[in-house]
Formats: sequence, C-alpha cells, structure tokens
Amino acid sequence: MNEVAVACCQFAPVIGAVEGNRKRAETAIEEAAREGAQIVVLPELCNSGYVFADAEEARRLGEPVDGPTVSGWMRLARAHELVVVGGICELDADGVLRNSAVLIDAGGLQAVYRKAHLWDREGVVFAAGRGVPPVIDTALGRLGVMICYDLEFPEWVRVAGLAGAELLCAPCNWPALRRPAGERPGEVTRVQAAAATNRMFIAACDRVGPERGVDWTGASLIVDCDGFPLAGPAQSGESVTLIASCRLADARDKSLNERNDVFADRRPELYERVLSRARTPRTSPPSH
Amino acid sequence: MNEVAVACCQFAPVIGAVEGNRKRAETAIEEAAREGAQIVVLPELCNSGYVFADAEEARRLGEPVDGPTVSGWMRLARAHELVVVGGICELDADGVLRNSAVLIDAGGLQAVYRKAHLWDREGVVFAAGRGVPPVIDTALGRLGVMICYDLEFPEWVRVAGLAGAELLCAPCNWPALRRPAGERPGEVTRVQAAAATNRMFIAACDRVGPERGVDWTGASLIVDCDGFPLAGPAQSGESVTLIASCRLADARDKSLNERNDVFADRRPELYERVLSRARTPRTSPPSH
Repeated sequence: MNEVAVACCQFAPVIGAVEGNRKRAETAIEEAAREGAQIVVLPELCNSGYVFADAEEARRLGEPVDGPTVSGWMRLARAHELVVVGGICELDADGVLRNSAVLIDAGGLQAVYRKAHLWDREGVVFAAGRGVPPVIDTALGRLGVMICYDLEFPEWVRVAGLAGAELLCAPCNWPALRRPAGERPGEVTRVQAAAATNRMFIAACDRVGPERGVDWTGASLIVDCDGFPLAGPAQSGESVTLIASCRLADARDKSLNERNDVFADRRPELYERVLSRARTPRTSPPSH
Repeated sequence: MNEVAVACCQFAPVIGAVEGNRKRAETAIEEAAREGAQIVVLPELCNSGYVFADAEEARRLGEPVDGPTVSGWMRLARAHELVVVGGICELDADGVLRNSAVLIDAGGLQAVYRKAHLWDREGVVFAAGRGVPPVIDTALGRLGVMICYDLEFPEWVRVAGLAGAELLCAPCNWPALRRPAGERPGEVTRVQAAAATNRMFIAACDRVGPERGVDWTGASLIVDCDGFPLAGPAQSGESVTLIASCRLADARDKSLNERNDVFADRRPELYERVLSRARTPRTSPPSH
C-alpha cells in the first residue's frame, strides 16, 4: 500500500510580525517539501502569533482566506504538489475574527475550518465555529482538520473519525503546563488515545518561541492508528520539521481482531440518552 | 480536603479454580486493608479466570451476585469498612452469563454492572449489558464502575463523567499486545486521556498469570484528574497491590482555568447530529 510522507513544521511565529511570520511559514513548507513531505501541517495562528494584547490587536493582524498568507501557501502547494494544513487569524467576509485552519492542495483551497472549542482568552478575541471538522478526499488520502483544544473533546475527534478521516491534521499552540517529571505532556497522551480509539493517524503541529510570558509545550507529533508516535514528540523550544511515512489506508480498517472493530463495537443507542443532553453548567472556579 | 486511599490488587486468577480464586481475591483485599486502603479495586472475572475453553465451561464457573464470591467480599467490606469493586463471571437470575462488576460497601451490595462492550470471544460466552455504568454515592466519594474494553469508548467514559463520577473503578483483563520499545501500553495511555478529558480519577486494575497461552499487560494504574499516574503502571507479570492517596473532591471541579471547563466547553448541539447516528457497519477484516 502507498506510504504518504507527512510533516509537522514546528516553528516560532512572532506576535504581530505578520510579514516575517508569512516568510517563516513559507520557508518551513519549502524545507519540508525538500525533505520529501507530501502533506505539511503547520501550527495554529501562523500569521499573527497567539498572545494578543486585546481583540483590537488581533483584528489588525487578521486577514481573509484569500489574503496573502493563504495565497502564499496555495502557490507552494501548487509548485510542490503538496497538501498544506495550517492555522491563521482570519478576518472573515462578515468582519468577524476566527481562529481558522485551511486545507489546501495543488488544486487550491479545499476547506476552511473555524475552531469550535476556544481556549482561555480566545473567547474574548474570536467567534467560535459552528461547523463540523472538514473531512476531505485528496489525492493522498482522506484528511480531517481541527485545531488544538478541539482535540480535547473525544466527541469532536469521533465526528472526524466517523466521517472517515484517515489522517487528522491539527494545527496547535499548546501553552506549556506543569507536569510530573518523566511524563509526556498530557496533550501528547490525548492525541495518542484519540488516534487509537478511532484508528486514524494524527499529525498535531505545535509551535515554539516564548511570547509575552507564555511558553509552549513544543511537542509536535505524528502518531499511527494504534496511537504510537511515528515522529516526535518534538522537544520543547526546538524549531524542527518532523516527517513520518504513513500508510494511510491502514486507517480504513477499524478492526482490532476478527471480532472487534472500534466503530462497529460502539453502542450509540446506549450513549445518546445521556450525551445528547443540553450543555453542562460550569463548575465553580478552582479554590485550591 | 479529605484524601482517600485507593488500591488496585493486581493478582493472578487461575482458569477454573474457583475456590482458589476466591481465596486469592480475599487475601488481596485483606492485604490492601492492612496497608490502609479504603477503596479496593480488583480485576475483571476474579472468580473464574478469563480464557474459557467454551461457553459451557464459563457456565460451570459462573455464580449469582448473592453467591460465595460476592458474599465473601461483602463480609470483608463490612469488617474493614471498605468499598470493594471487582469483576465476576455472573450467572444471572435468568440463567444468562454476564461479565459483571459489583460495587460493595460496608452496607452491602450497592450496584451490579454488566459489561456493555465485549472483547473478542467474550461475545460467544456473555450477553452484553444494556445499562449505563453505575455512579454511586458512597461515604468515600462518588464512584463509577465499568469494565476493561468499555474504557476504550470515550462516549461511555463520558457517560460516567457527566453522571459525576469522581473515581472511575475499572476491573480489567488486558491481554498483552505488542508495542514499540519504550512505549507505555496503549490501554494505559487511554486511561490517562480518559481521566484528563473528564477530570476524574481512574483506578484500572489488571490481572497477571499467563492462561492457556494468553499473557496480560499487567499494567494496573491509578491516575489523577490530570491523567498522570499516582501509582503504577505496574510491571507486567507482577502480583502487586498499588495504593494511591486521592483527593476525590478535586474531581468535582471541571475547570482548567478561569475560562475553560471540560464539561461546560462541550458543544453537544454540534455533536449530536453526527454521534446519534445508527450503528456503524464493521469494516473488512485486516488483509495485511
């Protein structure tokens, strides 16, 4: 079966330096293409950086999906016959700011996704998406897209899995959190579990480069459909291009043995009674 | 806040040796009590062993929940003021074989759960459960129960999480699978992710002791509500009592920061369109 070379370009955008960020992303894509990558995943909010002072700053840095950042990625995708998935600070046609990701192939822009689960102050800056994660047939395989904190909701990952995503491409900006010595970052563990429970590959591309007091986990990784890393997790602080060869067709087979299958074994008739209930109220903020 | 001492008794049942298995389980409970445990989690199918030759053998080994195995656990729970959660091969009142788990406290039997997601040849032997995982208020905290392969379905774990489980107790028999060198077993990773995405503690108690050519992962563990191990993962092949002190009240707070909350941030209105769909057909068996 065909192997596809998947890359994660973990680099360091700089808050507000839109021109430099475009250049950094394009350089990373070109380097990945030179190393043989066919699918290139970039971090979240590549054009703008992440730690906005306020919504006004984000608005000044946003651009439409036909703006210069995505146009540059389209040019490179065409030139090198790549699929590119990357995150941008999007100012949409209605003037609404979005934390978005695009999926581009040699034929142009194939999907725009707006992050549905917003992290921390993103809710002050961005409007949350209402669309499901796109799952798109490309010449290289069936690819899904979601962004960072979206991955923490198994329901959302399942939506992409059930739609047939063979590789889930996830631009991320993972703020560094404390963890016990010797432990992988929790985000990494959850990517591994998300891949295995859906038997699909996941390429999660994080960023590096401390920004206004925030540092990043910097743990980009590409996992197989058993949830084991094929490349990464990358080292914190390191700008790096990870590349892994992925036999994406493996993700079409959801069986674990002759009798078990991660999708067919689901019992949606038992789940829906509980899971379709209305929104859960927020618990009290931490007091300890 | 109160700390609760939670134990996993990873031991080695022997297929068919019901009397010896009862003794082994009781000895393990008594040892855990001596070491200060207040909640004791045992493996799946403690009374019977796992690798049945056929359904008839399982039927000979099954017993009702008022049979000698559970009666013995009730006696110990009363004597030592324990909560005990353990798995048995149950012959129910209708003569149906079940892969079941019981939750017992000093006041007696509080819940019986029948495994809803059956692994491999279990489907030949057992009828699958149709009830949701019990979530029971005990004097020590609010406890959920499910069994082994159930944990691999994030929807099922979410059902217990949304019902308020502070500690999910999971009797397991994890057959050993190959994994890359240096990697934790996938089951361990998925327990970690399940805990963190629901911000609850999980105690997963595996077994050891090769049985009719099947060996076990033997990776029992107790994780906190960030998904990091407080005890274990145990070593494969080792009969061991893991004990961890758990501040179960931490699991009542689902917030990650001032703005994020793992339950309130869910967007069920976006999930249900897709996730309430009917059963997914089985994919073709592996051809590679």
